[in-house]
Amino acid sequence: MSETLRVGVIGAGYWGPNLIRNFHEAPGSEVAAVADLSAERLTPIRKRYPAVSVTSDHREILADPAIDAVAIATPINTHRRLCEEALAAGKHVLVEKPLAGTAADAEAIVRAAERSGRTLMVGHTFVYNPAVSAVRGLIERGELGKIQYIDSQRVNLGLHQFDFNVLWDLGPHDVSITLYWLDEEPTWVQATGGCFVQADIEDVVWLTMGFPSGAIAHAHLSWLAPGKIRTMTVVGAKKMAAYDDVTAVEKVKVFDHGVERLEPDELRRAYRAGDIHSPRVPVTEALQVEARHFIDAVRTGKAPLSGGAAGLRVVRVLEAGSRSLRLGGVRVAYGAERERAAAPSAK
Amino acid sequence: MSETLRVGVIGAGYWGPNLIRNFHEAPGSEVAAVADLSAERLTPIRKRYPAVSVTSDHREILADPAIDAVAIATPINTHRRLCEEALAAGKHVLVEKPLAGTAADAEAIVRAAERSGRTLMVGHTFVYNPAVSAVRGLIERGELGKIQYIDSQRVNLGLHQFDFNVLWDLGPHDVSITLYWLDEEPTWVQATGGCFVQADIEDVVWLTMGFPSGAIAHAHLSWLAPGKIRTMTVVGAKKMAAYDDVTAVEKVKVFDHGVERLEPDELRRAYRAGDIHSPRVPVTEALQVEARHFIDAVRTGKAPLSGGAAGLRVVRVLEAGSRSLRLGGVRVAYGAERERAAAPSAK
Amino acid sequence: MSETLRVGVIGAGYWGPNLIRNFHEAPGSEVAAVADLSAERLTPIRKRYPAVSVTSDHREILADPAIDAVAIATPINTHRRLCEEALAAGKHVLVEKPLAGTAADAEAIVRAAERSGRTLMVGHTFVYNPAVSAVRGLIERGELGKIQYIDSQRVNLGLHQFDFNVLWDLGPHDVSITLYWLDEEPTWVQATGGCFVQADIEDVVWLTMGFPSGAIAHAHLSWLAPGKIRTMTVVGAKKMAAYDDVTAVEKVKVFDHGVERLEPDELRRAYRAGDIHSPRVPVTEALQVEARHFIDAVRTGKAPLSGGAAGLRVVRVLEAGSRSLRLGGVRVAYGAERERAAAPSAK
Amino acid sequence: MSETLRVGVIGAGYWGPNLIRNFHEAPGSEVAAVADLSAERLTPIRKRYPAVSVTSDHREILADPAIDAVAIATPINTHRRLCEEALAAGKHVLVEKPLAGTAADAEAIVRAAERSGRTLMVGHTFVYNPAVSAVRGLIERGELGKIQYIDSQRVNLGLHQFDFNVLWDLGPHDVSITLYWLDEEPTWVQATGGCFVQADIEDVVWLTMGFPSGAIAHAHLSWLAPGKIRTMTVVGAKKMAAYDDVTAVEKVKVFDHGVERLEPDELRRAYRAGDIHSPRVPVTEALQVEARHFIDAVRTGKAPLSGGAAGLRVVRVLEAGSRSLRLGGVRVAYGAERERAAAPSAK
Repeated sequence: MSETLRVGVIGAGYWGPNLIRNFHEAPGSEVAAVADLSAERLTPIRKRYPAVSVTSDHREILADPAIDAVAIATPINTHRRLCEEALAAGKHVLVEKPLAGTAADAEAIVRAAERSGRTLMVGHTFVYNPAVSAVRGLIERGELGKIQYIDSQRVNLGLHQFDFNVLWDLGPHDVSITLYWLDEEPTWVQATGGCFVQADIEDVVWLTMGFPSGAIAHAHLSWLAPGKIRTMTVVGAKKMAAYDDVTAVEKVKVFDHGVERLEPDELRRAYRAGDIHSPRVPVTEALQVEARHFIDAVRTGKAPLSGGAAGLRVVRVLEAGSRSLRLGGVRVAYGAERERAAAPSAK
Repeated sequence: MSETLRVGVIGAGYWGPNLIRNFHEAPGSEVAAVADLSAERLTPIRKRYPAVSVTSDHREILADPAIDAVAIATPINTHRRLCEEALAAGKHVLVEKPLAGTAADAEAIVRAAERSGRTLMVGHTFVYNPAVSAVRGLIERGELGKIQYIDSQRVNLGLHQFDFNVLWDLGPHDVSITLYWLDEEPTWVQATGGCFVQADIEDVVWLTMGFPSGAIAHAHLSWLAPGKIRTMTVVGAKKMAAYDDVTAVEKVKVFDHGVERLEPDELRRAYRAGDIHSPRVPVTEALQVEARHFIDAVRTGKAPLSGGAAGLRVVRVLEAGSRSLRLGGVRVAYGAERERAAAPSAK
Repeated sequence: MSETLRVGVIGAGYWGPNLIRNFHEAPGSEVAAVADLSAERLTPIRKRYPAVSVTSDHREILADPAIDAVAIATPINTHRRLCEEALAAGKHVLVEKPLAGTAADAEAIVRAAERSGRTLMVGHTFVYNPAVSAVRGLIERGELGKIQYIDSQRVNLGLHQFDFNVLWDLGPHDVSITLYWLDEEPTWVQATGGCFVQADIEDVVWLTMGFPSGAIAHAHLSWLAPGKIRTMTVVGAKKMAAYDDVTAVEKVKVFDHGVERLEPDELRRAYRAGDIHSPRVPVTEALQVEARHFIDAVRTGKAPLSGGAAGLRVVRVLEAGSRSLRLGGVRVAYGAERERAAAPSAK
Repeated sequence: MSETLRVGVIGAGYWGPNLIRNFHEAPGSEVAAVADLSAERLTPIRKRYPAVSVTSDHREILADPAIDAVAIATPINTHRRLCEEALAAGKHVLVEKPLAGTAADAEAIVRAAERSGRTLMVGHTFVYNPAVSAVRGLIERGELGKIQYIDSQRVNLGLHQFDFNVLWDLGPHDVSITLYWLDEEPTWVQATGGCFVQADIEDVVWLTMGFPSGAIAHAHLSWLAPGKIRTMTVVGAKKMAAYDDVTAVEKVKVFDHGVERLEPDELRRAYRAGDIHSPRVPVTEALQVEARHFIDAVRTGKAPLSGGAAGLRVVRVLEAGSRSLRLGGVRVAYGAERERAAAPSAK
């Protein structure tokens, strides 16, 4: 690898231009080429970045020995094929979330990365968000106490997708953040939702995850809401924290609130509502942190924070959630398929 | 009945003093007597209302022919007995929500009211809240279009109860408001929750109701939250509304937002985000509206908005929710018990 | 004085009932009698407090030897006469703000109190507000550094007064809080405003005060505003604080923000935006704190926080502000009249 | 002029890159060249726009016959010279606000534009802000009634300037918006402020303007504030409006609030607090609107909304404000200099 990581970006739709801009600006990388099937999408790229070569055939990028890594921002159902091709061509890969549309595909990608010895990273941007990292720090240092539950609101008006539902669109954010914060995998997953605009595509989903520690995480995911809300409340046995991604200031607040030992006669005295503290959070764009993390992972060979294993866990949760949705909201054991697949009797 | 409705209040704990104050202030009623087992609770009543007689024995109130009606604000498990006694004594009854702790008890109370010919009303205060009424008006007039879903946040720090969980404490509000708005009974009920402070008493519950119209209502109920939130979002096919009970102004907002016909190539054009309108809502205290509604129902013999049937429906939802909680969140058919009870084989 | 301070309240209009309620509830006092010229105003008092005697003649209260103190909540132009009568009758006096409508009247009241040896306290309620006290604590402990400026917004729709302007209606709050926080008297006062609803009665005033320390305080006072705003921002050389009296939570916020040494080439590095901290502030009603403070001052003979001298300073600022208003906003020296009055040549 | 307006940008400091980006993206214009004395500032321009020629000598731009117009974003004290040179060279000119540092300089620029017959436009970006236009529409259509007063908050932490004060830095926004809304010139100007960080450079200023219609406009301008506030409240005799430039939604709110005829006995009934309406405002970037307006003005020869006369009026207000600051806040007649300058007897 040359001193500067030379990146090819595959997919210039909604998200691709953000990847281009960030690898363009990141110290240590440059965007060498961009591929997209649509000439219309390449036109503004060509205008804005005259020095970047553009192509409608991603195989030109994979065949170019001067390109070290690819960033893939294409529809989910193409992830497996593109990742496998890119890894086989010796490229390091950053692929958008979710890693794949099925756990089986995600596992195949992870295996391909292991075979190739190249870096595989999934674009779970929020785990690189400074406010999310700040909450992780609070939890790690034990400031909140044992985590009891997390409640999340992730809603806005649109954008509807046509090939997958809101669980697969917005859910990867909540799942990746929650697994990062709790540092454990769920025991069960439950999901209920409604299809109001398109038949058979949920535009509203309530997702619940139960964890071995006893923690519960719940998320309201919706494409049908009057405003954009991005809040996650973390209730610990000692303190509580709130993370609001929409506000410009005080993105993280820590509440020195809690419940002491409850005694019927002393009920009101059992509540402690103390100071509220809002730690300063750097305003760095999460995608820039992510891009630098990828560059660093490639350079050092260290496993990235959101590597293939993390991406696979998220897909497993979403897959279990989909099954729960179909089954009317029953709890689905997380990892059940894995066990079935691994069991000899499954043959 | 005398020209002024003479009311006896049974129970002077957390809520009773609010009833006393409101019947004291309402034109057309006066508080004649207050009963509570605790002398300590009667002391401040006596100080504040020297003209009101107080007693530790509610039967004195029931035996007093000069008292027309009783307002009952006692623990849930006493509702059936007290209501039955009061109705048998010929008193009109306003009883706090929920009407009872089981559907069987609630049904018994409703039957007792029918036998007595007296007014039975349940204290579902929120259906008398001017902002709730304003949203009901929007729905009735079709301004929001077909209702797709309702999402509610009803959380705060405490007050924990010792004999029942947050579903029975905060849930009656969401259920009564939702049934009032949608004007239909649910098909199924689902609930998931966690017990973090007391064993076996859920302090967090996520409640979901599915309706024949296709609407879904979801509520986050919690005694463990950093702040007090009371918001309900109503998403209709034409417009959306948000009701915030905590804010002093703009309690109701109507968003002229929606999704038009979706076409893959025109996705972004399909979203309509228009004006936001906040109708003025009178600032009358809901409990005062409720007190006057009760006085009027007694006087005219008209069925109150939150009569026995409405109270019974709420208890049935809560009972189904409790069963879902015990069963790990499966959907429980609303009214299943009723059908079982009515079936010949049930004998 | 008996063990319980027996208080007579003179004036049962807008504010009087609040005084009655608070002295009724405060430990150590009871309301013995209420006087008002209007029988209509006395009726609800009589209904709510049957044990309190009511009268249309305040002299009955002053003549009653069983009454220790009076609380005066009457029009400003009656303050001097009522205070002088009450003090002459040996009563301790709590009088509503502003102490008087002219500095001359205020001085006369202060002298009357000195002659009588009785306690004189002015109802500058905000200096007993826990949030205001919290900010005072921050300033006293030097946490904000040298105070540079205070900006205040105190606006709402109505209530217009007919006999005095918004400067005399809302201004006493800002002036009393500011003098309490800065602990100094202004050098000059400046005021500009407009009369939009009533001729010659300003409904909007911008008031500015300059202090010997170099601090400047500015207040926007208005009866013509779309909403109720009560915010005061205190900018110190080290930190900044914001006090919002309307919000239910986080009434006080401390911002660890500031400007370091400015160098042209390092401009952006000179700004420090750090954590934001919101200390828990007790939710006690300020008027209850004030009532207890008055009871304590009478009992111990200690000078109250808002005694006659403090009340007089506020009146002097308002009087200087009025002169500035008439003179088109020029700076008026604070205390100039005092000096003129004291000068031999003034005779 | 060629079909596409070819623009040269002079000054690539804080604001210049925004002008470059907007003329680059606007249909009908292209950035042909950029001049800046600092090579360091030109480097990122060269990297991002390889097709744009860069130079340290603005005269190269003025001498280039292929360039139709220049956009000037340099220190204020260079505006006169650069504008005169550019107009003399036959270029159309867009110059940043304020037009000049003195009314004399501003007048000279206006005269130079008249002589040249070229378009002169001042970059008062806010008058092209869709929210500001929406409020102007409300006023023009009479929806608010006669405007009584405008109160503005325009504060944040930094950025301090070294060569002029906050009045000249933030004040042009409030003054240009206010003159645009009220469509009249003030009668008098008044300003008070403080210098807390740098000697003799006000970092806080309160500016007041009185208008012939009776309206008053007041602005709090500060570089020393804990947060960024950009709110303007417009109080009309019929309705009130609030414009908040910081919020992402509901930037404009119209309050159907007002005061009816006041009668002492009916005081409370005199207030009307009605619905609140938030019209949808397009999210177009104001600078893009401004760029297109300039292109259109050049193309059609029509006078721009913020032409030389508008820019001169703003400078006259600021100059009067500066004099008031020096004189301790007395009212300074707007236009007094003009009259003095014009009067023969002034010699």
